[in-house]
Amino acid sequence: MKNAIGREIPNELLVDGKEVFQGAYARQDYEYTKAAPRVKANVHNDESKLVSLEEAIKKTGLKDGMCVSFHHHFRNGDYTLPTVMKAIHNLGIKDLYICASSLGRAAKDIVPMIEDGTVTGISTSGVRDELGEAISRGKLKHPAMIRTHGGRVRAIESGEVHIDVAFIGAPTADELGNASGKGGNSECGVLSYADVDAKYADHVVVLTDTIVPVPNKSASIEAVDVDYVVEVDAVGDPSKIASGAIRLTDDPRELAIAEQAAEVIVNTEYFKDGFSFQTGAGGPSLAVTRFMKPHMDAKDIKMGFALGGITEPMVDLLKEGYIRTILDTQDFDIPSVESVHNTPNHVEISASQYANPFNKGAYVNYLDYVILGALEVDTDFNVNVVQGSDGLIQGAPGGHPDTAAGAKVTIIVTPLIRSRIPSVTDHLTSVTTPGETVDVVVTDYGVAVNPRRQDLIDQLQAAGMKLKTIEELRDTAYNIVGKPAPIEFDDEVVAMIEYRDGTIIDTIRKLKD
Amino acid sequence: MKNAIGREIPNELLVDGKEVFQGAYARQDYEYTKAAPRVKANVHNDESKLVSLEEAIKKTGLKDGMCVSFHHHFRNGDYTLPTVMKAIHNLGIKDLYICASSLGRAAKDIVPMIEDGTVTGISTSGVRDELGEAISRGKLKHPAMIRTHGGRVRAIESGEVHIDVAFIGAPTADELGNASGKGGNSECGVLSYADVDAKYADHVVVLTDTIVPVPNKSASIEAVDVDYVVEVDAVGDPSKIASGAIRLTDDPRELAIAEQAAEVIVNTEYFKDGFSFQTGAGGPSLAVTRFMKPHMDAKDIKMGFALGGITEPMVDLLKEGYIRTILDTQDFDIPSVESVHNTPNHVEISASQYANPFNKGAYVNYLDYVILGALEVDTDFNVNVVQGSDGLIQGAPGGHPDTAAGAKVTIIVTPLIRSRIPSVTDHLTSVTTPGETVDVVVTDYGVAVNPRRQDLIDQLQAAGMKLKTIEELRDTAYNIVGKPAPIEFDDEVVAMIEYRDGTIIDTIRKLKD
Repeated sequence: MKNAIGREIPNELLVDGKEVFQGAYARQDYEYTKAAPRVKANVHNDESKLVSLEEAIKKTGLKDGMCVSFHHHFRNGDYTLPTVMKAIHNLGIKDLYICASSLGRAAKDIVPMIEDGTVTGISTSGVRDELGEAISRGKLKHPAMIRTHGGRVRAIESGEVHIDVAFIGAPTADELGNASGKGGNSECGVLSYADVDAKYADHVVVLTDTIVPVPNKSASIEAVDVDYVVEVDAVGDPSKIASGAIRLTDDPRELAIAEQAAEVIVNTEYFKDGFSFQTGAGGPSLAVTRFMKPHMDAKDIKMGFALGGITEPMVDLLKEGYIRTILDTQDFDIPSVESVHNTPNHVEISASQYANPFNKGAYVNYLDYVILGALEVDTDFNVNVVQGSDGLIQGAPGGHPDTAAGAKVTIIVTPLIRSRIPSVTDHLTSVTTPGETVDVVVTDYGVAVNPRRQDLIDQLQAAGMKLKTIEELRDTAYNIVGKPAPIEFDDEVVAMIEYRDGTIIDTIRKLKD
Repeated sequence: MKNAIGREIPNELLVDGKEVFQGAYARQDYEYTKAAPRVKANVHNDESKLVSLEEAIKKTGLKDGMCVSFHHHFRNGDYTLPTVMKAIHNLGIKDLYICASSLGRAAKDIVPMIEDGTVTGISTSGVRDELGEAISRGKLKHPAMIRTHGGRVRAIESGEVHIDVAFIGAPTADELGNASGKGGNSECGVLSYADVDAKYADHVVVLTDTIVPVPNKSASIEAVDVDYVVEVDAVGDPSKIASGAIRLTDDPRELAIAEQAAEVIVNTEYFKDGFSFQTGAGGPSLAVTRFMKPHMDAKDIKMGFALGGITEPMVDLLKEGYIRTILDTQDFDIPSVESVHNTPNHVEISASQYANPFNKGAYVNYLDYVILGALEVDTDFNVNVVQGSDGLIQGAPGGHPDTAAGAKVTIIVTPLIRSRIPSVTDHLTSVTTPGETVDVVVTDYGVAVNPRRQDLIDQLQAAGMKLKTIEELRDTAYNIVGKPAPIEFDDEVVAMIEYRDGTIIDTIRKLKD
């Protein structure tokens, strides 16, 4: 059947109460009873929690058909997932469902495990490279589930996904299981995405290469939720966990886009003292902060809180007093890793606090502005950030649909044309974020505002900004590079794109060979 | 039927799966599925959480027969419970069950509500004065349930108690509900006991007199768990929340007891670098720290962590470098309130992390030493801290049974005779803490070690300490003041004393008029 944005969702996917997308806010006030883990009481500390990885896997009772979970804070330097999956593979356990917050390059090791039936299902925000190719080509037994950061927490907290064993890599842990993103040899800053795993999995195994004395203070993962602690040689490759510092763009096209996005912000009503803000780590997104600073000086205002994945420019603004608080769910570079928990007012929050649509009010709900990227935008303002122009799964929704739904002003920044492919188009390969939650599209060829937001159109025009329609942007793109030829797919669904509220917003079909 | 320590528990109390006490560690490895609250999703922030108290009560749907909860961090200066209960009373809601972490003097206002049927059930650690008298005299419709701090968390996390509406008073909160024990006009330091209420109640209402900007950083109560925020004139009376500073005793008898307790500690095997320790806020308990300091200097060792309710002497030891970390669940005086979150390594933990026997390992399990008080100890080393020598309920188990069960060495400090009543006796009015978990009794007439702990007897004798048997201590007391006359009770059970694992360790009968 067709969903609220006209995407065809095969009926055979609508099992176990799964529904099609019905609008970004259709589930406001949805009532449910939270899920809960099975727990074995530890009335008295009869046994040490410190065991080998193989012992831990055996003691949890992991068996065929179960669900294991991982987080992606170590990003491309993650050793936990490959190490654990290798040990599981050696034990001959099959038919596993992997529930990951996201899967980076380190997850390529599971491609052969997909082929031999060790892994038959995957829930993730993103996949990359070999794994993206394997899923796009239909190698995974069951369709992959692409989830947002908030949607993953919702799926776990609502019981849609039940994690049997969570494996949580941590830069430091004490022997009781108190685990932190700080310290050790593979520092990643925060463990925000793993919080829900620790609280809702039946069994929780912490892996670390750095055992610290009890108590590991201000740990993100609490010992009261941890069954076993495994000491490993290395939990990650520090050189791949965080970039040294993300270079601010000097591409004139990107700078022009960023400057326009800043114009949109400073000329709308929410730009006042205490405003809240999130931006991605992409070139034009990050550069927006540079252009906002003089406007903040001129109006003598400060940002109340900055949210989400953090990079050095935000840390600098905090230290310079432009931002009152950073609420951090992920650290993209070393300066951010070094700042969180050390700089006053740079604090870690959980993914539930960040973006879960089914708790009592995540921080995304209180965002004034969010700056987001796009691979493609259609004329209904729907956005694709998951599927590349070649049809391969290569991106990740992350917090894109979550922040877009929550923020008062959602601004997409994108070059109008990328590698001779138009970014504004009639029809998306697949939809990640519904147009209902997208307010402004800023390109190097002009700015278009969603007609639903007449208030923003009025404010920007009053400030003298010249706006275009989204159709004008599309026509400009088509005039330059032509209308893109459709990619050819088979009928088979290889992945579902889940909206944050658990409904299916779109599917990804198998690439034709 | 008789339980494991020979106390007669009436069969009519053994309903809904309730069992009699079977031994302190009988439920090790007990498996269960955690409870979970019902939640209304807040996909988008359509409405402010800021409402009046009456609106909040109505919006939660509170009705006859439900359970409401409160915490006791404001101690005798609490305004939240009286304010909320008055508003509930005005709305005519009846037959309520109050699940409080403890009830101080401020709870006297509910005595008339017991009489008029507004309150028919109570779960608490302690009750005092008028409320203790009312319960002891059988005025409450259902027997009160006396729970330990760990046992309360267990009862809620296991679903034995389901909180419909939690009312959480907080010194500061932001409009989203992030609430903290720090700042404002009625600072109480931590909100450790309220953590489980916020996470497991269907509806959560925060009351505060100080609304701070979003986000209230490092809040103990997270906005994602909070439905409503109510601004009140005052949440507490600062002069009654914490004492200015607890005077260290100069009573020679108390000092002698403390010195003996310190001798026990320093002459047992766990007194080495990194040892962990908890002490109560009573005179002789607190004084123990004074006598340990020179021994720590002599051995050049530091304490790893100090746990539990905190007072100035512990804060001083932290600041002087004798303690590496304080894990704080309650602040008894202003110096502790001022220190927590401000002094590095003085950190707040939840009551579950502190003492819950049914999570995966609370900190009490890792205590080396705990110093506890007693109203009475019997010759099986069972301890009563709840029922006074007049038979009135006047004390609270608090963390007494939790720490006794967890610590490697549990030391009871008590004068042998108090107001001409022997503290060591043949038979207790009621048992709070089973003798199986009590290792040493230190009195002003000598030290007795539980025969179960031959290891400690050997270590203390090797150090030259002269020990007595518990029977010798009893005989000494009886020789001085005589055997106490039994108190007269009716058959009616007015309160159950629950062991931390949910079993019934004893009952309290109605005082004869």
